[in-house]
Amino acid sequence: MKQNKTKIEIVISEIEQQIKNRSLMPGARLPSVRKLANDLGFSVSTVVEAYERLIALGKIESRTGSGFYIVGPLAPLSLSELGPKLDRSVDPLWISRQSLEAKADVFKPGCGWLPDDWMPLDSIRKALRSAARSPDDCLMGYSTPLGLPALRDLLARRAQSKGINANLNQVLLTDSGTQAIDLVCRFLLKPNDVVLIDDPCYFNFHALLKVHQVKVIGIPYTPTGPDLEAFKKAVETYNPRLYITNSGIHNPTGAVLSLSTAHQLLKLIEQSNLIVVEDDIFSDFEYSPAPRLAALDNLSRVIFIGSFSKTLSASIRCGYIIAKPEWIDQLTDLKIATSFSHNGVSAEVLLSALTDGSYRKHIELLKVRLAKAMHDTITQLEPMGIKPWIKPQAGIFVWCHLPKGVEASEIAKYCINHQVILAPGNAFSQASNAGQFIRFNVTQSNHDHIYETLADAIQQES
Amino acid sequence: MKQNKTKIEIVISEIEQQIKNRSLMPGARLPSVRKLANDLGFSVSTVVEAYERLIALGKIESRTGSGFYIVGPLAPLSLSELGPKLDRSVDPLWISRQSLEAKADVFKPGCGWLPDDWMPLDSIRKALRSAARSPDDCLMGYSTPLGLPALRDLLARRAQSKGINANLNQVLLTDSGTQAIDLVCRFLLKPNDVVLIDDPCYFNFHALLKVHQVKVIGIPYTPTGPDLEAFKKAVETYNPRLYITNSGIHNPTGAVLSLSTAHQLLKLIEQSNLIVVEDDIFSDFEYSPAPRLAALDNLSRVIFIGSFSKTLSASIRCGYIIAKPEWIDQLTDLKIATSFSHNGVSAEVLLSALTDGSYRKHIELLKVRLAKAMHDTITQLEPMGIKPWIKPQAGIFVWCHLPKGVEASEIAKYCINHQVILAPGNAFSQASNAGQFIRFNVTQSNHDHIYETLADAIQQES
Repeated sequence: MKQNKTKIEIVISEIEQQIKNRSLMPGARLPSVRKLANDLGFSVSTVVEAYERLIALGKIESRTGSGFYIVGPLAPLSLSELGPKLDRSVDPLWISRQSLEAKADVFKPGCGWLPDDWMPLDSIRKALRSAARSPDDCLMGYSTPLGLPALRDLLARRAQSKGINANLNQVLLTDSGTQAIDLVCRFLLKPNDVVLIDDPCYFNFHALLKVHQVKVIGIPYTPTGPDLEAFKKAVETYNPRLYITNSGIHNPTGAVLSLSTAHQLLKLIEQSNLIVVEDDIFSDFEYSPAPRLAALDNLSRVIFIGSFSKTLSASIRCGYIIAKPEWIDQLTDLKIATSFSHNGVSAEVLLSALTDGSYRKHIELLKVRLAKAMHDTITQLEPMGIKPWIKPQAGIFVWCHLPKGVEASEIAKYCINHQVILAPGNAFSQASNAGQFIRFNVTQSNHDHIYETLADAIQQES
Repeated sequence: MKQNKTKIEIVISEIEQQIKNRSLMPGARLPSVRKLANDLGFSVSTVVEAYERLIALGKIESRTGSGFYIVGPLAPLSLSELGPKLDRSVDPLWISRQSLEAKADVFKPGCGWLPDDWMPLDSIRKALRSAARSPDDCLMGYSTPLGLPALRDLLARRAQSKGINANLNQVLLTDSGTQAIDLVCRFLLKPNDVVLIDDPCYFNFHALLKVHQVKVIGIPYTPTGPDLEAFKKAVETYNPRLYITNSGIHNPTGAVLSLSTAHQLLKLIEQSNLIVVEDDIFSDFEYSPAPRLAALDNLSRVIFIGSFSKTLSASIRCGYIIAKPEWIDQLTDLKIATSFSHNGVSAEVLLSALTDGSYRKHIELLKVRLAKAMHDTITQLEPMGIKPWIKPQAGIFVWCHLPKGVEASEIAKYCINHQVILAPGNAFSQASNAGQFIRFNVTQSNHDHIYETLADAIQQES
């Protein structure tokens, strides 16, 4: 009896193994009882019993007169199953969802956006009222494939002011900056390609690249840009396809690419197969413009991406891609196939808000406010032993080193139970020392409760 | 000399072949001149000459002191190169782009949307003014991951009225119906999976599925739904993963799924590994509701999709997915990773327009107008020998058979040169007789110029 049971288990585990490694796909027919018994040298009753148990387990099914089949459907693509399991408190998607789902009474120094009252509310309200008076076709029809010409022209001019030589036919509107990067990834990547990212980098890049099932290599980010030695080595070792980076102000470190690093970097890129996505999302917060890879490279291998989520509205979504004309044409086909069109009314609203004369003033005031918030946040953190990695020249983030022996994910766990959502370093980087860092959004950090909770968390930890 | 030239050509074509079949990937190092000469039994000078010519052709490059490398980058994903080349006049993407790019003075009986003045303009203008008065966080912040609860609740109730048992936590807002289907495809499909579609079907399904690099099998659509014999055979032969269909009113045929066919179809589906995407986009044009697969199946294997592009606005974009809770959770992760959020203000605007009390009246008037346009279009077409495949009970499309010997793509080519954009059958179907059909949008067909041009085209052709 014991031996017989073991044989049944052998059959079961063999079939489970084949289902797992996909040599038996859902819907596949199993060998007949007689054949399998023969092949294994087991009795027919052993195999019958094994099949019965697999039916009871819901793994196979019997179809009358036809035999036994692997039960479908396939488990659908689960982001949480693609790649190593992460502790939910440092899983990028979980942090995004926590921040997005958080109630108004929760403090969010870990989130990536500005408080509503830092945003140009009056200008957006005015732009919506103006959109309500738009011509019929603007309100009702699908947009043209590239999108509102006047907005594309403005975006091309803004790019030109950063030295990027583009015209409106090289600008493609999308529904968000993230969608823009996703479209480029769909255009360029296939599974198992290698993609270089900054380490640390914006955490949603990790989530997005997981969807594309590519291999991700992090390049340490220095105060003047990516580490060139590491970059060179990665290019030589992995023949990577894409490099995704922030320009202007780097997320999460607040560092700025130096002209010399940009030049060296492009020399390496020109000798490789790399294409670069330069995400310019924080650019309007700059005091003095940092070099843009797209400008140096003249949009040859660099694709320039932007959006208005940080400066106009995160709810009226619109992003854009600036690239060479033949790529724009192909990306437009891809955009139509996967989303048919974008939100044309949003484009109208954002164009109004950008051109009503108040935008520049809004940004100037915002920068003053940001500088103060940066100073205040650092001043509050330093006495707690939480030290900025660098003092950012601009932007909304400061990337901070925790006191020795304190682990960011533990702090984040404690804080989330006390109504404070943090962004622990592990979400931005898979480097072994990432847990020593936390990113603070200075615009969301002006509350005593945050620092009190942090102090409690650190005390608990150390 | 002659022989030597041939050897050079042998080397060149061998390397070109290896690049083509990807055994030499971009960035890969070529064998050294000496090694290759040795391996092939050719002289070193032959290989040097071959490498020089490959450099001149731009296929390989020399890196000083390091050797020869295959030039990158890889050609990016081009939709036009995935799959057989289509005549541009029947290429689904080209038709979409032509229609989307068409100037106001072009007639578009081939497009898939209603004229602006058939749409609820006043209601949308009012809703935009109302959005301008929204609370700050609605205008500025990212939406919650699933989206506006009040709109999701309304959508769940609307689904319930069709017999679909869903609550608001099973509704995920997206930026469009197309994006919703694309998300589901990303969730479920991998390259080379088999997907069943109706034949004919909405042409953008072809373009979208091309992006997913799946194998597409068309199931002939009958006046009461998909051909069950063909469906059964496809299920048995291909073990397909997904079936994408329209519910309510089928695009392009205007046919309606019968309850009996729906029941038989689901029995086949339940015995297979299929998951179904039911795209409900035209549902508000129905007089009496057709059966919904999602209702019969109780959202077990059916995912229900919808949007407002046809009844509220194609420019204020918002779509939705209704599915079982565990799938909604995974789809939400995927949505965050690939687009971070959706347009929250659009959700507010559409909710206002749906609930301001005028929507039902708008739809009732629209249906009367549609019935008249359907009658008028058919009355104009029939004397020209252009006969409806069936007389649709509702909706905006009539699928018509051309006179014998007349080819839709030829007619479409003639007409586009005369300011009329048609939708030839070949864009909806790869069946051999597809060129005998044209889809007419009855709301865009009330112009003598269309019928005069059609008559000229037919005369030229026959």
